[in-house]
Amino acid sequence: MTTTNHQFRLAARPVGMPKREDWSYTEEPVREPGEGELLVKVLYLSLDPAMRGWMNEGKSYIPPVGIGEVMRAGAVGRVIASKHPGFAVGDHVSGSFGVQEYALSNGKGVTKVDTSFAALPVYLGTLGMPGMTAYFGLLDIGKPQPGNTVVVSGAAGAVGTVVGQIAKLKGCRVVGIAGGADKCRYIVDELGFDAAIDYKSEDVKKALRTHCPNGIDVYFDNVGGDILDAALTQLAMRARIIICGAISQYNNTTPVKGPSNYLALLVNRASMTGMVVFDYAARYGEAAREMAGWMAAGKLKSREDIVEGLQTFPDTLLKLFKGENTGKLVLKVANE
Amino acid sequence: MTTTNHQFRLAARPVGMPKREDWSYTEEPVREPGEGELLVKVLYLSLDPAMRGWMNEGKSYIPPVGIGEVMRAGAVGRVIASKHPGFAVGDHVSGSFGVQEYALSNGKGVTKVDTSFAALPVYLGTLGMPGMTAYFGLLDIGKPQPGNTVVVSGAAGAVGTVVGQIAKLKGCRVVGIAGGADKCRYIVDELGFDAAIDYKSEDVKKALRTHCPNGIDVYFDNVGGDILDAALTQLAMRARIIICGAISQYNNTTPVKGPSNYLALLVNRASMTGMVVFDYAARYGEAAREMAGWMAAGKLKSREDIVEGLQTFPDTLLKLFKGENTGKLVLKVANE
Repeated sequence: MTTTNHQFRLAARPVGMPKREDWSYTEEPVREPGEGELLVKVLYLSLDPAMRGWMNEGKSYIPPVGIGEVMRAGAVGRVIASKHPGFAVGDHVSGSFGVQEYALSNGKGVTKVDTSFAALPVYLGTLGMPGMTAYFGLLDIGKPQPGNTVVVSGAAGAVGTVVGQIAKLKGCRVVGIAGGADKCRYIVDELGFDAAIDYKSEDVKKALRTHCPNGIDVYFDNVGGDILDAALTQLAMRARIIICGAISQYNNTTPVKGPSNYLALLVNRASMTGMVVFDYAARYGEAAREMAGWMAAGKLKSREDIVEGLQTFPDTLLKLFKGENTGKLVLKVANE
Repeated sequence: MTTTNHQFRLAARPVGMPKREDWSYTEEPVREPGEGELLVKVLYLSLDPAMRGWMNEGKSYIPPVGIGEVMRAGAVGRVIASKHPGFAVGDHVSGSFGVQEYALSNGKGVTKVDTSFAALPVYLGTLGMPGMTAYFGLLDIGKPQPGNTVVVSGAAGAVGTVVGQIAKLKGCRVVGIAGGADKCRYIVDELGFDAAIDYKSEDVKKALRTHCPNGIDVYFDNVGGDILDAALTQLAMRARIIICGAISQYNNTTPVKGPSNYLALLVNRASMTGMVVFDYAARYGEAAREMAGWMAAGKLKSREDIVEGLQTFPDTLLKLFKGENTGKLVLKVANE
């Protein structure tokens, strides 16, 4: 009996927002694992803003996805066949399995996950890349001190929700910037942020003056554009800005909007530092243990926004860029 | 006998390039120093790109010069009367004496300088604020390691010439960006830079690829604008950018051009940090001693571009923004 694998492959490099025609939906038979390989049934796919960058040509922190290749994506699934000594049938695993139903792997970059501790999708969010990004970006680069004011944009997203909660755990005042009243309510009422700014209905610059009277000590930026520029107007002395992403700019058809107010770095002796989570791979275990501890103690909440159906992938991905997700956007591909 | 003091006062906040009408030229009698005061005859004035910023309204690292106030300027001069225990008639001193012929001071921020070691104008350049800026910006923020590639813009200016020479002393490969063949020749042939890029006749991005094949480890930015953006395209991993100034943007009548390529910080895990030299005041002595040692050993050359006559101040200042000076621009106000 042959199993069929369905896949989304990159058909064209998008101009602006990715369109349905930028993808091809393909099928092919699933091959049995060879020696040293394992076969994973993909259950949940991670949809991340960074995916938009991987679709572009050119030098970045990771090679672009080639035209005709299965789209790169983090995922969790179950091992259904294995000739790899490290993995057995039935193991739940996390890895870069791609936008498809089945993935063959040599085990590199694949880690087992414990579904008795947390549901599978959590391993794509708070205990996955977004959680690691938040943890290392905030703590290693932001170096928040008790009493500091920490501002995070994309605050209701997979990274932002974790950044804000960790900052609270570290004794900071936390202000989140998010789009819409629901997200703002969520981060304040459910996650315990001190304040939220709704960039869709508020003047962000003015609101930052109100909510950060002593200036921003740490700004964790996921969005770029006008919001980064607004944050630059309210820096405290020696502020640290973490450049984690710039979702407002990823679908631009015009050049990226550079931060006009960057000379605020000079005025405030502040710094702006880029981060890529992969650099911290050797320390993921340490972070996961600490965050799992916070979760077990009820101090760190995880939320996933789960959409069903591999076929919805092209549209579901766009939810990220339209700001339609709260928490980690996950695509459910199959049941166990 | 009453001495008359001539002064340039800020008459209006300039829009774009400062015009003659933005200044008023005033005269008033010189008052005798009171108890605890000294009277300085100003001999040389320091003309600095930062002065343009001080003419603007709004929050910065230092309050703006008020309308009607004598324009702020660093200067060196000779004490001609003193009721201050720390200063005697005949002492040569450096301080923020302003664009005028005579300055009364309470001694705060005034330091004696040794004309037996270096000529007075050198204390406005290599042994003054520009030298301090270069020293602390490069060493404290840039943290150059032997073998690193260091790029500096405004390379033939007061700060840039010192940055490049110190970087060479620290075992770095040094590439300077300057305007015009003469300046480029000067920094390579006279100061020992490894290469120069003439931004007026070369494609800076392309030239940086040629001269920095392993990427830029430290970029010391004095100019902002397109040159900052070009440097961002050629960063090495974990590059450090020092934001010291942005002379290309100071006379803009449109918003500052933010660096469109700032996401290169993310790709390269790089940082961009602002600096203001005043923060290092407590360590000026340390830097001055080390730099004086280098000068005495012939390892650090100082060059001043001296224009005569207080009355020329409005035009002479513009030389900075037109890129007409090589080395430290100094206005000679009077003979001893």
